[in-house]
Amino acid sequence: MSLQIIPVSILEDISFGDDLVDVLLKTKVGRSIKDGDILIFTQKIISKQEGRKINLSEINPSLLAIGIAGAYEKDPRIVQLILDETKRIVRMKNGIIISQTPQGLVCANAGVDESNVEKGFATLLPKDSDKSAQKIRRKIKAKTGKDIAVLISDTFGRPFREGQTDVAIGMSGISPIVDYKGKHDTFKRILRVTEIAIADEICSASELVRGKMSGTPIAIVRNYNFDKKNGSLDDLLRNKSLDLFR
Amino acid sequence: MSLQIIPVSILEDISFGDDLVDVLLKTKVGRSIKDGDILIFTQKIISKQEGRKINLSEINPSLLAIGIAGAYEKDPRIVQLILDETKRIVRMKNGIIISQTPQGLVCANAGVDESNVEKGFATLLPKDSDKSAQKIRRKIKAKTGKDIAVLISDTFGRPFREGQTDVAIGMSGISPIVDYKGKHDTFKRILRVTEIAIADEICSASELVRGKMSGTPIAIVRNYNFDKKNGSLDDLLRNKSLDLFR
Repeated sequence: MSLQIIPVSILEDISFGDDLVDVLLKTKVGRSIKDGDILIFTQKIISKQEGRKINLSEINPSLLAIGIAGAYEKDPRIVQLILDETKRIVRMKNGIIISQTPQGLVCANAGVDESNVEKGFATLLPKDSDKSAQKIRRKIKAKTGKDIAVLISDTFGRPFREGQTDVAIGMSGISPIVDYKGKHDTFKRILRVTEIAIADEICSASELVRGKMSGTPIAIVRNYNFDKKNGSLDDLLRNKSLDLFR
Repeated sequence: MSLQIIPVSILEDISFGDDLVDVLLKTKVGRSIKDGDILIFTQKIISKQEGRKINLSEINPSLLAIGIAGAYEKDPRIVQLILDETKRIVRMKNGIIISQTPQGLVCANAGVDESNVEKGFATLLPKDSDKSAQKIRRKIKAKTGKDIAVLISDTFGRPFREGQTDVAIGMSGISPIVDYKGKHDTFKRILRVTEIAIADEICSASELVRGKMSGTPIAIVRNYNFDKKNGSLDDLLRNKSLDLFR
């Protein structure tokens, strides 16, 4: 059976406190959700809904932020936000800041992003995307009776390869990794590829129907069999001690 | 319109010189391909078809390979194959060898893989996956008249995150990156996320219908609008001088 990826178009802009499930269920596609669907929400609408949109005029950059901003041709207020969202600087070179965020994500600019918000504003990553996903999943269950999984997706760069891809930054109702450990391949040999990050693959797949400019902040993946054991972002984060590139 | 990902099941094992297009067109799903479809083939069947399956009994490991194998608890013949496929060792630690291959890919074990082949054998990456993809695309056009794109997909780990995901290692008839440079978001602001590696996202999406043990080495992505300008693996490879992690 073929897997389907269905875009959910939302006409309105999302503001702090909006009910994302109401917004979803206002759409015809949203009302068609079925048990076993996976709903993928962009980081951007979660951040907006949770009030993680920051007015840059309220930011007072530190001397350090001003110094980095000068060297990197960035807005000092943006650099201040990046530093505030950074637990550890992983790389800072060629005008690029790669941070480890308090959530443990390793990404450019600690996820601080000025796209798809009004001029003079920036969004930060949700504080706890697993919790954001769980809230949505429970509300959908309460309002529709449907058992679905929720992923929060963001667009990250990666070492070695050009271009960015979407990965999961939060989840509820889904185990993010399929573990083939000890399983046998078609030649009855133990498989060496043991763990597939299906949550990241699903987020990447959802990006294909979303694009970056269309008002499509939600997508539905249908007909995918997955383990409904509740996973978390932590399952996807490599421990620094095991990481050959930190 | 929703995007579809359709698995193509193949019952037989692929051998050197097999006609993969004939194998595809023997299946009902394969015969249903349409103009604009993207066909994703696993590295494994391409390598088998191209004779990149190596009999380990024919490998004479060097002293270096024997030394590394001893320290890393690996088969010295496998280490020899890895060294033969390595242009530069990027990291060698914790029993893991990360290589840059002659094709420019950065991956574990230079792509040398013992899964899904008989005991005593290993597969190497195709020598030129773009060429492999081009051959298949042309043959499909000749046999069916259909204009499709072809991606060759492999499963790689990545820094920072647990689990592996599929990425593109070769292509024909598709531009692998969507460039939003200078485009405007919904707030008429220039987008900062400029380049999306859609070829990698499509390969990741195709992995979801394939799994690792089922005989499903081909998948079809349907209803995705893409730029048919012919791209290449090189478009996806970051230049070492621009890479913060090499």
